[in-house]
Order: sequence, then C-alpha cells, then structure tokens
Amino acid sequence: MDSVRALAAHHPVYDVIGRRRDVRTEFTGRPVDEAVLWRVLAAAHAAPSVGLSQPWDFVLVREPATLEAFAAHVAEEARAFAVELPTERRERFRGITVEGIRESGLGVVVTYDPTRGGPRVLGRRTVQETGPWSAVLAVQNLWLAATAEGLGVGWVSFYREPVLADLVGVRDPVRPLAWLCVGEVEGLAEVPDLERHRWRARRPLRDAVHHERLGGQ
Amino acid sequence: MDSVRALAAHHPVYDVIGRRRDVRTEFTGRPVDEAVLWRVLAAAHAAPSVGLSQPWDFVLVREPATLEAFAAHVAEEARAFAVELPTERRERFRGITVEGIRESGLGVVVTYDPTRGGPRVLGRRTVQETGPWSAVLAVQNLWLAATAEGLGVGWVSFYREPVLADLVGVRDPVRPLAWLCVGEVEGLAEVPDLERHRWRARRPLRDAVHHERLGGQ
Repeated sequence: MDSVRALAAHHPVYDVIGRRRDVRTEFTGRPVDEAVLWRVLAAAHAAPSVGLSQPWDFVLVREPATLEAFAAHVAEEARAFAVELPTERRERFRGITVEGIRESGLGVVVTYDPTRGGPRVLGRRTVQETGPWSAVLAVQNLWLAATAEGLGVGWVSFYREPVLADLVGVRDPVRPLAWLCVGEVEGLAEVPDLERHRWRARRPLRDAVHHERLGGQ
Repeated sequence: MDSVRALAAHHPVYDVIGRRRDVRTEFTGRPVDEAVLWRVLAAAHAAPSVGLSQPWDFVLVREPATLEAFAAHVAEEARAFAVELPTERRERFRGITVEGIRESGLGVVVTYDPTRGGPRVLGRRTVQETGPWSAVLAVQNLWLAATAEGLGVGWVSFYREPVLADLVGVRDPVRPLAWLCVGEVEGLAEVPDLERHRWRARRPLRDAVHHERLGGQ
C-alpha cells in the first residue's frame, strides 16, 4: 500500500493524495455527471493564486473531432520521443500508454491569462512564473477533488503548445498549460503506471528533505 | 462561508480546499511537531510529476540568521513593488502583510532539479515547463495536508531568485521555486487577505468555464 495512504487515520486528505493516479487506461468512457464535474471545477477555482489573480480558465472539450485531432497530434509527438530513446528504453516505452484522450471523452484544458489582475500583480514582479504556477496549483486541486469523487485524471503533455492553442481557440498572450483527461474510471491503479512498467522507481522521501541548505542533513 | 466548503458533505477534501489560506499574520511561532511536518512532506512527495521524475527537494530553514536575511530581502523587494503603484493602490498595499518568514519560524524552500530523471524525461520533450510545474503540484499537496493538520502555509514570492538560491545553497541548474512559511496558526482567516483588504475580488466560477473553445458558452 502507498505510504501516504497509511496516514489516512490522521486525515482523509492523505487517502486522496495517496490514491491519486495519472490515468491513461482505466477510463470507462461514460459521461461524467454534471454536478460532480462542477464540484471538481469549483475545487480547482479555489486554488491559491499570486496576488489573487486567478489567472486560469477551464475549457471543457467533448467534440469527438477535437479529441480525435488532439489524440493524433499526441501520437505523432510520442513517436518523435520514442525514436530518440536508446533501444532498451524504446522497447519499454512501447508498452506504456501516454494518453486517454478519446477514452475519457472529456478534456479539460487549463489556460493561463497573464493580463488577469492588471499590470501590477502583487507578488509576481520578481518571479513572473508565479502566474502560470498559480494555474498549476488549480490543476492539483482539480486532480484531488476528482480522485475524491471517484474520477480519474490524466495530464497529457506530448503536444506542441501552438497546436493545442489553435484547437481550443486560445490566442496570445493567453496560453494553454495543460490538457487533462477527466472521466469515470473502473478504478485507480495501486502502483503508478511508469513504476509498474519499470520506467522509473520512486525516490525515498528522506532523500528529498534537507536542513538549512540543499544537501544539508 | 466559502462556497467550496459547502461541498464538504460530498467529501472532506472540499472542506480542506475551501479553508486553505495563504497565511501571513496568523502564525504563533511555536515549533511544528516533527511527526506532523513529515506527514505534510510525505503528502508533497506523493505529487504527480512529469515522467515520474519527482524533480523536487525540500529545504527546511529554521536558522534565525537565514530567516532574518530573507525577510530583509523580501522587505526591500516589497518596497520596490510599492513605489511603482498608483497612489491609491500604494495606500492599500501598505496595509497588507506580504510574509510571515520570522513569525512562522520555518521556511520550506521547494527546489527543482532539471537533471532528475535523466536527459529524456517522458512527457517533458515538448513542454519543458512540466518539470518545474511538477514541483508546483507538490506545493499544493503540501499546502492541503498542512491545512488538514491545522497548520498555516504562506507562499512568499517577493524575492530575486539568485538571492534565495545563495541563501539555501542551491546551484545552477537546480532552482529554488518557492519559499513557503509553514507554522502553527491561531486559525485561518475566513476571507483571503487580499479580498479583505479590497486589493482584488474573487471571480465567479461560471466566468472561468468554457465549452469547446476559450470563450465558448
């Protein structure tokens, strides 16, 4: 069992954090209940944001032609990644599913608008990236609420940003930051896909924690 | 009451998401229990990451001299922000506390290591920013777990990255992405500070949700 799930006796949030998976293959394709979807979007919208700018928007994509076009583009980019891999890694990659775009039946595209909040966003002056990072915090709220509701979420990143922007009508300076497959699932995998396929192993927490300075024990 | 908290009957995660606040003034300064801190860090470490790269590290900073030096730097950058504001906004900004660095007694610096996971991180080829974004997902897990545990978290972003990097011994290509004040709190504010100080109002969820294309209703 996941070590974070073992903390659920302290608070149910640990169970949700530990069960959350990046879903590709478990989608049933049945439509998501509208009330549930709005609760999940409300969770995303309650995320923290730099200067309370709330610079995100959520585009719900269900048109089969759009899902098809995006899936085709992603397949092409996944092939481009594969050809650069050493043989042994390429073989392993072949067994890994990188998206559930058609299977989920719903894409939630999270966008970032740098003009939201005016020219002087409190806290963004020296670290401009806190703008897009705010939208990423919203993604994690969405992911956890969806997990709590029994839905699956899969973040797809094998795409060229201008292609995705065109598909969902996003124009400069607004940017699409993420395509999230959201849908009903048969269940969530116990072990992350990439660990199960021996692409990578998880790192022990203890190695990631330092004192006073990076590397400080 | 926060509209997301009203969803808590569906799952306790909504209560946590709705109560979470970006804390500056409510820290008690009492040390955080070690077991609680490790649970919160375990939650952060269970975040999703591109290609299972887990590119984050967490530097726990408690040395008073470091807290003092960082707070002084942040005060300087907050002044630089203030002088650029129109008079009315500058007056309003004066009433807003932008950090609780000394008061919390603990800074958790979240770093990003682009070399983690080797040169070919699955899913990062076309969107390199999914690397740092992974560390930001970890921040939100940390924030929610801390909220569930009754702790407060405040993300401080009035700083120059090289200054923070020097303070905590982070060297290129690793980057510090966030300073999080983490500490015991008297309680969490009902209304976000920036809304209470009428810096900005929150946007209705309905305005942030679109169909098929950005702007599509």
